[in-house]
Amino acid sequence: MSNSVCISLDAMGGDHGPSTVVPGAAIARERHPGMTFLIFGDEAIVRPLVEAEPRLKGAVEIRHTTMSISMDEKPSQAVRTGRGKSSMWKAIQAVKDGEAQAAVSAGNTGALMAMSKICLKTMAGIERPAIACLWPTVRGESVVLDVGATIGTDAEHLVEMAVMGSAMARIVLDIEKPTVGLLNVGTEEMKGNEAVKEAARLLRETELSNFSYFGFVEGTDLGKGTTDVVVTEGFTGNIALKTAEGTAKQIGTYLKSAMSRTLSAKIGYFFARAAFGALREKMNPSRANGGVFLGLEGIVIKSHGSENAQGFAAAVDLAYDMARHDLMRTTREMLEHTPAVAPV
Amino acid sequence: MSNSVCISLDAMGGDHGPSTVVPGAAIARERHPGMTFLIFGDEAIVRPLVEAEPRLKGAVEIRHTTMSISMDEKPSQAVRTGRGKSSMWKAIQAVKDGEAQAAVSAGNTGALMAMSKICLKTMAGIERPAIACLWPTVRGESVVLDVGATIGTDAEHLVEMAVMGSAMARIVLDIEKPTVGLLNVGTEEMKGNEAVKEAARLLRETELSNFSYFGFVEGTDLGKGTTDVVVTEGFTGNIALKTAEGTAKQIGTYLKSAMSRTLSAKIGYFFARAAFGALREKMNPSRANGGVFLGLEGIVIKSHGSENAQGFAAAVDLAYDMARHDLMRTTREMLEHTPAVAPV
Repeated sequence: MSNSVCISLDAMGGDHGPSTVVPGAAIARERHPGMTFLIFGDEAIVRPLVEAEPRLKGAVEIRHTTMSISMDEKPSQAVRTGRGKSSMWKAIQAVKDGEAQAAVSAGNTGALMAMSKICLKTMAGIERPAIACLWPTVRGESVVLDVGATIGTDAEHLVEMAVMGSAMARIVLDIEKPTVGLLNVGTEEMKGNEAVKEAARLLRETELSNFSYFGFVEGTDLGKGTTDVVVTEGFTGNIALKTAEGTAKQIGTYLKSAMSRTLSAKIGYFFARAAFGALREKMNPSRANGGVFLGLEGIVIKSHGSENAQGFAAAVDLAYDMARHDLMRTTREMLEHTPAVAPV
Repeated sequence: MSNSVCISLDAMGGDHGPSTVVPGAAIARERHPGMTFLIFGDEAIVRPLVEAEPRLKGAVEIRHTTMSISMDEKPSQAVRTGRGKSSMWKAIQAVKDGEAQAAVSAGNTGALMAMSKICLKTMAGIERPAIACLWPTVRGESVVLDVGATIGTDAEHLVEMAVMGSAMARIVLDIEKPTVGLLNVGTEEMKGNEAVKEAARLLRETELSNFSYFGFVEGTDLGKGTTDVVVTEGFTGNIALKTAEGTAKQIGTYLKSAMSRTLSAKIGYFFARAAFGALREKMNPSRANGGVFLGLEGIVIKSHGSENAQGFAAAVDLAYDMARHDLMRTTREMLEHTPAVAPV
């Protein structure tokens, strides 16, 4: 397996555009020197940033584009105006054409998913794509999906997600046979809506060789890391993810105010500041930045729109990992070994 | 308005039964001396506990029951066997009969809801009941519903919940005209499933005099306290609630381990221990314990099954508040002033 991986970048996406994307690429490349980049965006802005980065020397090809997708554009509108010519579309197209092994964009999620579906198409055997994220747990990390690609689901889609999430877990978490849980409102068999109950039946009754079905898990199991993969419908998954982010921020606020209230607390904070630094690092969402689009014929990673260069670099790292270990091949193999959803 | 409120208690519910319920009642009564109790349960166990509590002197009537509902019984099964004779049923029946103004149980949630629906019936104009909780926020508290009464929803039910939640917010948070948000995956009008989009349209187009509609809110808004009331479907609400609980616990684990890693951190912890105590108090879920059943012709509060006496006391406090301020009358008034759902 070669370490050389070319990643296409949509330089114009996100709240900060090229000023985050280019330094982010440089940070990632320092960690993985085998990386090269195809950068799509306004050359007048992108070139000086690239030239200011010695870590990107000889590793970047810039492709000038004149059009970019705004963060609040409707996906259908973005496809109409941006198809074939926006920096976002061209970054995806590079994956389709085999020029790059993965694309990363910090742009509009809905537009990125709509363009990825049209340009790359879904894999054989996959009804609908999903967005997965790495969820920090007390045990390490879990793969959680869908965090917002599609609203509404059925049992087959949940089972497909179990397979897609397991393929990602095998690569990113390096676990040969990941465990999969279905997110539900309780762990008893009778709990939940029809889709999760039927998906549970399918997963229990299917002979699984590449991953194992754990059963239902609840919201509290996410932070515990009870299973390597947690599968849920996109509406609920998105709300769970943002609720966890919000709760972490809320506790950070409490902590900050508690530590500045009295002199004794301030002295305590002074002595424990390194420990607080480690805690902050642990709670830093940039460390696990990147929504992975699963179920497409190509790798596309969505970086958070408000992330800084460190956060964007984490998304690039993820793209590199997935490309180097051939996510598509792993997913296809897993699909073929899962009778309930194997393509015919 | 009299301060005397009689609350019926299911002594046999929860992981610890009477040994938590009775001391919990005593703690609540110390705060609200106007309270009296009707306690249903095994008299041989309950009576010595009551007699050991000077704070309950003269305020308790014990009604002996021989049957209780187990924590893992299916609701339909619980209704079949426990109807008319279990401690849980009898506590609810006391509200129906006007002997008590509210019932509190730490028992099986599904069974408690099923029995409450059968015994008390839903209010005129309410299609389905909901379970609301008080969500701690950086601004104070918000009312969040439904956290698990029903799976699946439609626009009318979401609007009904906006009204029911507002009535609770007016009483518990003492806000004359609460703001209501609909939980969604984004704040743009086109986002979400059909039910939330249609509910948003109804709430925007209805003239609201008792509460105001804020718009869509996201998972991150829960901890921020963006609105006084947050409305969502029961599956998603339950998962959001448990995800927040899990995240808080996870961060507590990180914090504990960070503070014991080095000598300097330990010294820091020593000086800041009062601040950590305040933080722990803030993050303590017992403080806001109690799922409030809304939309029924009577007040029923579900205490968390694993709570200690302090937690149970918080649920009793909530019952007292709701009864004293006549939740049913407030809800009826609010329903009548909301044309989209006003009973005809």
